[in-house]
Parts: sequence; structure tokens; C-alpha cells
Amino acid sequence: MAGVDYLADERKTAEFDVEAMKVVWDGSRHIFEVSDRISKLVASDPVFRKDNRAMLPRKELFKNTLRKAAHAWKRINELQLSQEEALKFRFFVDEPAYTDLHWGMFVPAIKGQGTDEQQEKWLPLAYKMKIIGCYAQTELGHGSNVQGLETTATFDPKTDEFILHSPTLTSSKWWPGGLGKVSTHAVVYARLITDGEDHGVHGFIVQLRSLEDHKPLPGLTIGDIGTKFGNGGYNTMDNGVLRFNNVRIPRDQMLMRVSQVTREGKYKQSDVPRQLLYGTMVFVRQTIVRDASQALSRAVCIATRYSAVRRQFGSQNGGPETQVLDYRTQQSRLFPLLASAYAFRFVSQWLSWLYTDVTERSKVNDFSTLPEAHACTAGLKSLTTSVTADGIEECRKLCGGHGYLCSSGLPELFAAFVPACTYEGDNVVLLLQVARFLVKTVSQLGMKKQLVGTVAYMGKMEQLMQCRCNVQKAEDWLKPSQVIEAFEARAARMSVACAKNLTKFASPEEGFAELSADLVDAAVAHCQLIIVSKFLEKLQEDIPGKGVKQQLETLCSIYSLSLVHKHQGDFLATSYLTPKQASLANNQLRALLAKLRPNAIALVDAFNYTDHFLGSILGRYDGNVYPKLYDAAWEDPLNETVVPDGYHEYVRPVLKQQLHTARL
Amino acid sequence: MAGVDYLADERKTAEFDVEAMKVVWDGSRHIFEVSDRISKLVASDPVFRKDNRAMLPRKELFKNTLRKAAHAWKRINELQLSQEEALKFRFFVDEPAYTDLHWGMFVPAIKGQGTDEQQEKWLPLAYKMKIIGCYAQTELGHGSNVQGLETTATFDPKTDEFILHSPTLTSSKWWPGGLGKVSTHAVVYARLITDGEDHGVHGFIVQLRSLEDHKPLPGLTIGDIGTKFGNGGYNTMDNGVLRFNNVRIPRDQMLMRVSQVTREGKYKQSDVPRQLLYGTMVFVRQTIVRDASQALSRAVCIATRYSAVRRQFGSQNGGPETQVLDYRTQQSRLFPLLASAYAFRFVSQWLSWLYTDVTERSKVNDFSTLPEAHACTAGLKSLTTSVTADGIEECRKLCGGHGYLCSSGLPELFAAFVPACTYEGDNVVLLLQVARFLVKTVSQLGMKKQLVGTVAYMGKMEQLMQCRCNVQKAEDWLKPSQVIEAFEARAARMSVACAKNLTKFASPEEGFAELSADLVDAAVAHCQLIIVSKFLEKLQEDIPGKGVKQQLETLCSIYSLSLVHKHQGDFLATSYLTPKQASLANNQLRALLAKLRPNAIALVDAFNYTDHFLGSILGRYDGNVYPKLYDAAWEDPLNETVVPDGYHEYVRPVLKQQLHTARL
Repeated sequence: MAGVDYLADERKTAEFDVEAMKVVWDGSRHIFEVSDRISKLVASDPVFRKDNRAMLPRKELFKNTLRKAAHAWKRINELQLSQEEALKFRFFVDEPAYTDLHWGMFVPAIKGQGTDEQQEKWLPLAYKMKIIGCYAQTELGHGSNVQGLETTATFDPKTDEFILHSPTLTSSKWWPGGLGKVSTHAVVYARLITDGEDHGVHGFIVQLRSLEDHKPLPGLTIGDIGTKFGNGGYNTMDNGVLRFNNVRIPRDQMLMRVSQVTREGKYKQSDVPRQLLYGTMVFVRQTIVRDASQALSRAVCIATRYSAVRRQFGSQNGGPETQVLDYRTQQSRLFPLLASAYAFRFVSQWLSWLYTDVTERSKVNDFSTLPEAHACTAGLKSLTTSVTADGIEECRKLCGGHGYLCSSGLPELFAAFVPACTYEGDNVVLLLQVARFLVKTVSQLGMKKQLVGTVAYMGKMEQLMQCRCNVQKAEDWLKPSQVIEAFEARAARMSVACAKNLTKFASPEEGFAELSADLVDAAVAHCQLIIVSKFLEKLQEDIPGKGVKQQLETLCSIYSLSLVHKHQGDFLATSYLTPKQASLANNQLRALLAKLRPNAIALVDAFNYTDHFLGSILGRYDGNVYPKLYDAAWEDPLNETVVPDGYHEYVRPVLKQQLHTARL
Repeated sequence: MAGVDYLADERKTAEFDVEAMKVVWDGSRHIFEVSDRISKLVASDPVFRKDNRAMLPRKELFKNTLRKAAHAWKRINELQLSQEEALKFRFFVDEPAYTDLHWGMFVPAIKGQGTDEQQEKWLPLAYKMKIIGCYAQTELGHGSNVQGLETTATFDPKTDEFILHSPTLTSSKWWPGGLGKVSTHAVVYARLITDGEDHGVHGFIVQLRSLEDHKPLPGLTIGDIGTKFGNGGYNTMDNGVLRFNNVRIPRDQMLMRVSQVTREGKYKQSDVPRQLLYGTMVFVRQTIVRDASQALSRAVCIATRYSAVRRQFGSQNGGPETQVLDYRTQQSRLFPLLASAYAFRFVSQWLSWLYTDVTERSKVNDFSTLPEAHACTAGLKSLTTSVTADGIEECRKLCGGHGYLCSSGLPELFAAFVPACTYEGDNVVLLLQVARFLVKTVSQLGMKKQLVGTVAYMGKMEQLMQCRCNVQKAEDWLKPSQVIEAFEARAARMSVACAKNLTKFASPEEGFAELSADLVDAAVAHCQLIIVSKFLEKLQEDIPGKGVKQQLETLCSIYSLSLVHKHQGDFLATSYLTPKQASLANNQLRALLAKLRPNAIALVDAFNYTDHFLGSILGRYDGNVYPKLYDAAWEDPLNETVVPDGYHEYVRPVLKQQLHTARL
């Protein structure tokens, strides 16, 4: 970071210890040190440059990704990185690739659903990447509803094999990452059929391509499904299509931990609890919440730094114009997103604890907390990814016109993140699951069932239904007890209202269908409560570093009060707040924006992102935006020649009025 | 449209005359007939194919755009199309190109700001495209604040010339479409300096490139500013950068209608009213509102048709799953957007009338309605483009995973539309202008100033401040008088509250800065009121066609009540509604969604979009989605070979454990 720091003045106004905040952001000093070291390692390696990514045609882009993936694997081995370090390494390479699915889905599927023998056979191959695997579940006509998959795996007792087949066009596997061009193997989900009986969807290990010449094996049609949203982005990934024409695999390639097919073709279920499968979902979704905090914080970092660089209006006597970051409109859109990034970070740290807790319990067959953990992870995955997707786009708009340039990094960040709203459970479908859980919890309130974890607040339902907000002046909104009561009362009342309204319908299912929009709102209220409480719990911890806790308190209040403002309709409709109190919350929020302002740059510095990882000229650490933006323009392929390709054929004939004789 | 119509059953359930609705959508039978004819003409011409656009590398994409622009101009001349028809022709080619700026900004700038002699000299050249022009206003460091532009035009009395110069890097012209590679001329905005005195920003006609070899003229550095958001999208446009190094142009190339520089270097202002310049803004912004209704309706058409094709969950006894369009969650997100598309259409038709009215009045020097028209157009530009940008993305998500494929058409529609939120006035800056106008109007209420147009409702302020909603049952929300009172009361109270709160600050400017977020909310409430009233006014007209008016009534109610639901916080906080009444609005909304359902496909058919214009496999008229999606995948460049480029260098060494010796 040699050279002039154009944001030095901004950094001087910080009222806290930025280095200490970096540790809080990463969760521990150890994680901080690993992240810091590995991110700089990746940033300094020219193979991993990203600045040309948005300009590469698909084939070149993809080839370059293959190169990066190979180079990353080479470096990971050369440096003998630990598993943790290797994970970070791939993370900071920051380019979707087939390795994501190999390590993130293929290996875990075998570990979770394979028998001990299957794990012994396949995992060593996968760990050394002697085979490369993907996860083939969704089909052209079937996404969210896994039980609706059409691909069949029919057992043939004569040969002791399964026959995999795609009976219809819509049963073609569609979307699996890494499938289109690279994977040699896949875990394929298909309906298991033995002796004419359909046992539902099961997983099978299927070899896709020859390990000699990489050609698809007989009976398989495989390809890439085509260009996706955005420049660069997920176009580095070979999301694929796969059709089976009666492809045979040995019986022992069905993943048999939970259920088996015997040599005779008999279907059996083992006594391994099925709940274990939910544990995997909890794991995957909590990583998505962490990714959301990461993506949102990148966008916020870019927008905050550029808002300090950019000036518009307000020039006094010919002096410089006002920094955009000084405008309250800018702050009121940006700072709640900054606060959200921190809030999501802390809730993801808590979710990672929750996953460990669930795993420990399941080892002693205690699945009592699993439904609650499952609902809570599903809801938080939905909420954080939706807010992050919208938030990245908002940050892009907060950068004005220049945010629309790929060199701002924001278009690609958006395009690469936004599928998280759909994959691993569509966000609306997930919220409806949460709502079902909430309504069920409400309906069982009289039954003395123990309320665990994030629904424990429903235990004081009577109080929550009756209480009225005590706020009398704006500062009252800074009290944690006040904030938590507001969010609990709102969430509780919305769940109860849904449960009550559902009884008005002929059947519960009709009610669920009819009231789905209200149910979604209630689930959102519940999830926001979780995030607010986990942020407040974080503040109960001992947090070292000068001024660090104070900043976090401000961020927590901004997060909560911006939600009170945004959803004031809920708070007023449930009669918890008066209009006057809602207005006081808004006044307090405004005061907090002003309080945060001198710390804004330092708070995004605390994410500790390298310029390489940020990948944004607008978000450069040193604030030297305009000269670099100007330089970058000339790298565009269109500037390779002064007079553009096509001038002689298509522009000159127009100007010279010779179009009628031109061949176009 | 030969072949099976997979949506035929959906079309049979329509309860209205679709052909009659098409005429209502287009505004008149004449416009409908022109649109219908020209859109089919463009669709049938293979030069205008768009299905490969998202896959082309930038240079090829750009060259192809030059070809389309030339071909369009050739066809327009061959077919001797009228101005109206030519405009439609370019519109249906549906590809951002330099011609947009030539016809949409360069020509109007000369017409609006040039003297009669200047118009006589330049317009015939422009009309025949003997010169191609662009509009060079924004600079690298200066967007919204036109008065902050840095480029200078210094008059040199010795040679009777202006010297155009870029004194700083940030003064480089940046963003003008058509500038980067194509335009031969530009209207350049620069600070006029005579005899050391700065007269502020004025327009100048500047030749950029040689008409012989297309090379930039001496003293000019010109290029493209680089890749922008999305595949295809605005990457067909050569948004450009331009630096001046003391470039001389004759004095008569300053646009001198409003002010002049004499031969002696004396600066004069003519008696042409400056308000005329506002008229141009009203014109440009009302076309953006029309574009918004067009873009939103395209997205809604795609999402609605695909929601009828797509099935998920709810299979009974192994039968087909439920159409996604039957889910209330889907309807509650999609139908308000469908209603918004119609609402924006009608408000844009009204704005086009408003522009004509303003123009007629200005001819007789009546500028009394201009401030109101200006505020109203600014506000509606902001509101409709924000809702449309978010709405396109929402439609994309409503298509599930497949919406993320470029072949869905939605990513490109989003990327190409979203700059409308920033150009021609940043949406937040515009809403603040509206808010200023509203607060001013409120502050003058006692002064017996006549309240015209869309602020006329403020004339009954006393009543609006005191009234309480009369709704007692859900159906009461269907009464137009009830709906309009609710929106008027809300808008009025929010403006008054802002005006009142502003007085609490030391200076109005401090208040405006501090309360900007509330001011923006008040402006939104006002603009939503305008849209609701114009929709209701439309329903007062005689609308022929069986069932057409009934459908529009349903749409109008869905539009209004979804806003009541979304902004219930405003309605409750201003104490106009009780929570019970808000809840009744929501119940009524739900009933209307069910009522709309059988008409949904027909209502998007009424937009009369060709499959070419829609550019979406998911939105195909015949609903034959999956086979076409499958076929399209194989067209991707990545599928040119079965084994991908890069396999031998970067995949095989991984699999064969030969990475340590590989050259990467």
C-alpha cells in the first residue's frame, strides 16, 4: 500500500482500535492471523489476478478458472497448508469453480451418506483429487421439491447393478456446478426402484467421464447449461446438464448409510437416524450466512470508501464540493447496511456454534434441539441472503453512475452472490418452513413443551401480548431491554395473529396457502429478532480494544432502529408502539448516523480486505480512484484500436449516404 | 406462432377481450396498429436476432450493434417510414446504440438550444446522419451537479474561437453514450469564460472525429470507458471518455438561443425564457416513465407465463404438481408488479399529455404550470424506475433458478434498465427536489396561491389532516373515493410533518440535510398518490371491450391496496388508519389476487410483445419452455468441444497427480 493515502484524514478521525476490531470481525485472533496471511499470499500471486475477468469471453474465462484452480491446488500442496488454510486459500481466490462442489458437496455427501467401506474406497481418491466430483440433484423441471425428481435408478438383480435413466426431458439433471465440463464423478440423486417399487430419492456415485481422455462415458449426454447473469461471476462455473440413457453402475455405488439394497434386491433401512441429514443442511446453510456477511461487507466497504472520495454539490466559495458520505440521505441508506454486515457476521459466528452443538448432541442421539436449529438456520439463510443481494445492489447505486462499471467490482459481486437467494432452498420456501414451525410452536404453547433456543421468548407469551412500549424520549431506544422487548413483542404478536387467522379456514392447508404472505412476514420478524438478540448477546461479552465495544453498540442500535423504522407498520399494527414512539426511534437513528460518521472508514477497514479481494477501483484502500478508473478504461478490448471494428462496413456507409448499396 | 400452445388452457379462462385491452395498453388503436406492424417487421428480420447477444465478447457484440444500427437505418429509409414508425422501429430493435443519443439527445439539444441559423446548418446534416452526434455533459468527477462541471470553453477574441480544455483529470468527459467509438460530433457542456469571467455551463457543438478516416481530431483523447454491468445489456453502447487539450472551435458553435457571446467577446442573455430548458427535462423524463412501464411489463410477462408453465410441489396421487402461479405467495409478489406495469403505463400516457400541455402553454409564455409539471415528472421518473429495477429482479427470482440463465432474458433486461435509476437525475436527488416543492407548497398554503395539477389536493388540507378512514369491511376498500382519500391524507400529512419538523432546525438547509430521509418518504407518498389518481381517472373514461374495464378496476385495486399494505407504517403513523382497517385492506387484496388469477396470462398477452422483443425462453408465448431451454444450452461457446479447452494443461495434471511438474 505504498504511495499517498487519500483517505488518511478519514482514518485519523476513528475513535476506536481498528486492529482490535479486525479480531472481533474474524471471531478470534487465530482466524484473523490465518485470514490475513492467506489473503495476502493469494493477492500477491499474479496468477490470481481478477481485474480482467469481466472482459474475458466465456471460453477464455473458463480456461482461466481451470488454471487458477490447478494453481491453487498446487500451491496448497507445495505450502503444505492445513485444511483450514486450504479452505481460506480457495476462498480468497474468489472465483466460483468446480472445486467448490468437489470439496463443498461431493466429499460431504459421501462422508454423510456413505457407509464406512464406501468412505474408505472413495474419500482417499477425492482427497487427492484423483477423481473430481459434483452433486447432481436438481433437474430441468424440478428444483425446490426434491421428492418430485424424475431420474430413476432401477435395480437389476440379474447383474447386481442399478440402471440410471432419464425418462423425460424434464428429468435431465440441470444446474449442478462442475458437472458441465470438469467432473469425473457425481453423486446423483434418483428414485430408487426395486422390483417395481418406488422407494423415493436416494444418492448414487456415478462415474461421468473417462479418467483417460475425459470423454463422457457411454449413455451419458453432458454439457454446460449456458451463460448466466453478469460478466465474470458464475460464468467461471460449468453448471451442467446430464441425461442418462440406461447407464449401469455396480450396486455398491448407492450411498448406503441410511438405507440399503441387498444382493437380492431387498430394500432395507438401517437404524442410523434420518435426522443426521438435517445436520448437513444446518451446516451448509450456516456457511451461506457467513458468505452473506462477507459479500455484504465487501459491497459496503466499496461504497463507504468511494462515498468518502466522491464529492457532489455544496461547494462553498469555489472550494471543494461536499463528500457524499456527509449527506444524511447517503448515511441513512449506507450505514444500516454497514450495521447489517456486522450483525450478520455475529449471527453467523453464533450459527457456527449452534452447528457444533447440534453435532455434539447428535452423537449421543439427542435430536431435541434439531427442529429449532433447522428452522432458525433456514430462516437466517433466507433473511441474510435476501438483504445482502438487495444490499449489494443498493451499494452499487450509492456509488452513482460509476458503480455500473465492471471496474467498480459491484456488478460482479451482485451477479455472483444473488443465486444464494435461490440455491439450498428458495428464500420464500424457507421462510414458509420457518412460519410453519412458529405456528406449530404457538399452537403447542399450552402443552408445557419446553421452548428451546430462539423460540424461548414465546414462553412469556402472555406478557408479550400485553406489554406496551415504555419509550418516552429518543435515548430510551438505546436500552437493550427496550429493543429486545420491541422485537419480541412484534414477532410474538405476528405469529399469534397468523395462528389465529389460520383457524378461520376450512383446513390448515387452505389457511397456509391463503395466508402465505402474512406467514412470510411473521417469519421475517422472528429472524430479525434472532439477529438483534445475538448482536446484543455479543455486546455482553468482554470485548477488548479501545472504543471497540462502543462502536459495536452504535452499530447494533443502528441495525435495530433502522428495522423499527422500516417495519414500523408491524410495530404499530400490533399496537406495541405509538406513532410518537416510532418517530422517536427515527430521531435516535438519525443521531446515531451522525455519531458513526467519523468511524465509517475505519469500520470498513476492520474487514481487513486486500484490494485484490475487493476487486474494485472505487473501493481502493488508498482512495486513489479517478486516475485508476481512467487508466482501467483503456484496457477494454474495444480500445484495442482507435477506429472500431465495423467502422468501414457499418458506420462509414451511413455517414457517406451509401447505405443503399452497402452489404450489411 | 405455429405449433402447440401449451398455455391455451390459461388463455381460455380469460374474462375479457384481450384485443380490446391491447388498444388500451398502447393508448390508441393507431398506436397499437403501428406497434404491432413494426414489432413484427423487426422480429422477422434475421439481422435483428438477439438470442446470442449475451454470449458475444465485447468487440463482436459492439460490431454487431453497428451492423444492426446501419441495417435499421437502411430499412427505415427503404420502407420510407414516418418519424413515428422509425422511432418504433429502433425501439423494437431493442439494443442500446449510438443512435439513441443521436436522435434522443444530440438532435433535441440543437433544436432546443440552437438559434434558427444553427438549426438550419446542423439539423439537415443530423437528420440524414451525415454527422452522428452525442451529448457530452457528465465528467469523471461530476455527475448530478451540472454546475460543478470543470471543462472550460474560453473565448479568444483574437481568432473569434472558443478554446475547449480539460484542466484536470476529473474534468474528462465520462459516460456519454456514442462518444467512445462512433460519434463524429458532440454537444459538449463546458464553463463559458470570456475575458476572465466564468458564466457557468453552456453547450457547444464540437467535431470529434474526421469525416474521412474517423480518427479523433488533434487535441482530443477519446475512448470507451470499459465493460458495464451484465452480459449484452449496455455493452452494446460505446459510453466514452473525452479529454480536450486546448481544442479550438468557431464562435458560432456555441449554442446561442438562450445566451450569446458577441464577436467582441461580450456575454449576453436573450429574452428567450430559461424555463424552456425545463420543458426538455419534462420531455426526457416522461419518456423514461414510458420505458419503465415497458421494461416492467416485459419482466412481468416472462415471470407470469413461466409461473404458469412451472410446477412445484402439491402433486396429488402422483398427478402433476401445482402450477407455481397458483400459489398465493407467488401471486402476492407477482400481481402487484403486473398492476404496477399497467399503472405506470397509464401515468406515462397522462405525462405525455402533460408535456403537450406544458409545451402549448409555453408558446404563449404561460409557465405557471411548469414548476408543478417539473416536480411531478421528476418524482414519477424516480419512483417508476426504482420500482421497475427492483421489479425486474423480483420477477427474475420468481422464475426460480432458471431466471439466472441469460436465456431467460431477465438478467439482460435488468442490466440494461437499471442505469435509468441514475441517469437523467439520480433517483434520490430527484425525490429531494420533489420534497422541496411539496414543503414549499405546504408553506404557502395560507397565501391563497393557486394549487394546480397534482398538488391541488393540498387545497383541502384542513379536511385531510383531520379525516379518519371510514372502512368497516374489506369491500369498502374497493371504493375509489375511499382509496383516494387514504392516499391524499397520507401524502398530505407526511408533507406537513416534514414542513413542521424543518422549523425545528437552526436553518432550513440544516433541516433539509438532517431530515432528508423523511423528505424522500414524503415525496414517494406524493408520487404514489399521483399514480393511483391517474389510474382511477383512467377508469372514469369510456373503455370499450367486454370485461376490460372490470380487469382494470381489479388491477387498480391491487396496485393501491398492495401499497397500503407495504406502507401501512405511514398510514398508521399518520393515524389515518386503524390496525384493523389495514388488516381489512390486506384481506381485500388477497381476494383480488384470486380474482385476477384466471386472467393473468391474458393480461400479459395484452402487452402484445413478440417473442423476439421479449427475448426470453421462459416467457415464450407458446409456453414450450423446457425443450427450448435444453436446446439453447448447446449453443454456448463452452459446448463447442466435448472436452474443454484447458483440460490437458489444467485438469489432467490434477487428476494424474502431476501438478508438481506442470507448468501453469
